[in-house]
Amino acid sequence: MNQYPEQIKLLIEKLSRWPGLGPKSAERTVFYLLKQNKEKLDEIINGIAKLKEEIKICDNCFNISTQNPCPICLDKKRDQTMVCVVAEPQDVLVIEKTDDFRGLYHVLGGLIIPSQNITPDQLKIKELAQKVEKGNIKEIILATNPDLEGETTAMYINELLKNKGVKISRLAKGLPVGSTIEYADEITISSALKGRQQI
Amino acid sequence: MNQYPEQIKLLIEKLSRWPGLGPKSAERTVFYLLKQNKEKLDEIINGIAKLKEEIKICDNCFNISTQNPCPICLDKKRDQTMVCVVAEPQDVLVIEKTDDFRGLYHVLGGLIIPSQNITPDQLKIKELAQKVEKGNIKEIILATNPDLEGETTAMYINELLKNKGVKISRLAKGLPVGSTIEYADEITISSALKGRQQI
Repeated sequence: MNQYPEQIKLLIEKLSRWPGLGPKSAERTVFYLLKQNKEKLDEIINGIAKLKEEIKICDNCFNISTQNPCPICLDKKRDQTMVCVVAEPQDVLVIEKTDDFRGLYHVLGGLIIPSQNITPDQLKIKELAQKVEKGNIKEIILATNPDLEGETTAMYINELLKNKGVKISRLAKGLPVGSTIEYADEITISSALKGRQQI
Repeated sequence: MNQYPEQIKLLIEKLSRWPGLGPKSAERTVFYLLKQNKEKLDEIINGIAKLKEEIKICDNCFNISTQNPCPICLDKKRDQTMVCVVAEPQDVLVIEKTDDFRGLYHVLGGLIIPSQNITPDQLKIKELAQKVEKGNIKEIILATNPDLEGETTAMYINELLKNKGVKISRLAKGLPVGSTIEYADEITISSALKGRQQI
């Protein structure tokens, strides 16, 4: 034996493409799976199979949900004139947990990353522009990450929508609550200074 | 939506038990899977399902193989009197790649780790002792890692087999080939000094 059986090699190769799993941890994972009993493996298999069958993408906001349209889009008590634009469904959950936003969402399905060939047409940007064209929306909050890709995407959308009669805002950048100025990086401090608020 | 649908939560929980995947990377993995098409997901599902169906554990050496007994144990040209004891199937592959060992293997299926409740009776140590009792084995090479768990397991096996008439050895500890003394840790240098060889 100077190499693993084909079945193992193939699975290692596939798992090593998962985010956060390199070739070495994919290998460890396969051997971990080999040690599990059939019931445990079936649980994993069914879990993955169910994902695609039972999780739907909302046709309106492109968030994940077990229903389409999703409960957020169906909720008439929410402010239909405010749309918070996020990169991924995970971001919706984080913002919902604050209980501070009562508008709707729009999930882009990623960020513009030219080096990975992720261009605007692969994201739900056209659909956002179409929503704005319909004329019900008053404000768009661009809640993409304050990093290179997030800023690029926010700038692109701002450019696209700036003359459409909607207010466009961006999440504030500054010091994280509970953090220490001593350990903050310069760019964060610089953003915090520029965005300083009167008390 | 202030939490993920049940199907997603359950799969995140299961994947976060995999080695190398914490809760956060398990979450990223589930959203990565959600973005894959059905064919890609089926490939993963079949890959995991095939593992248990097609990969067998050799009854003699406890290595993984598509056959039982495995090709190494069936190879009569190999030295049947030497047994290299390793923790996991991965270790067999690494040693086979050197082409320097032509004996047989014995895969323990782990190492003794009291803090994780992994005790000798959960490993294939009893089976190793039974092989030795049969009397064909002349030398046992304990090729467990040179760390706490590997040393503990090697010492335990040595204690168990030391009066059974077999030669017991341990892989040499020292500086890795191609490394620099300047960056080696003290314990490695200390081991390299103790194990110095005349040239």
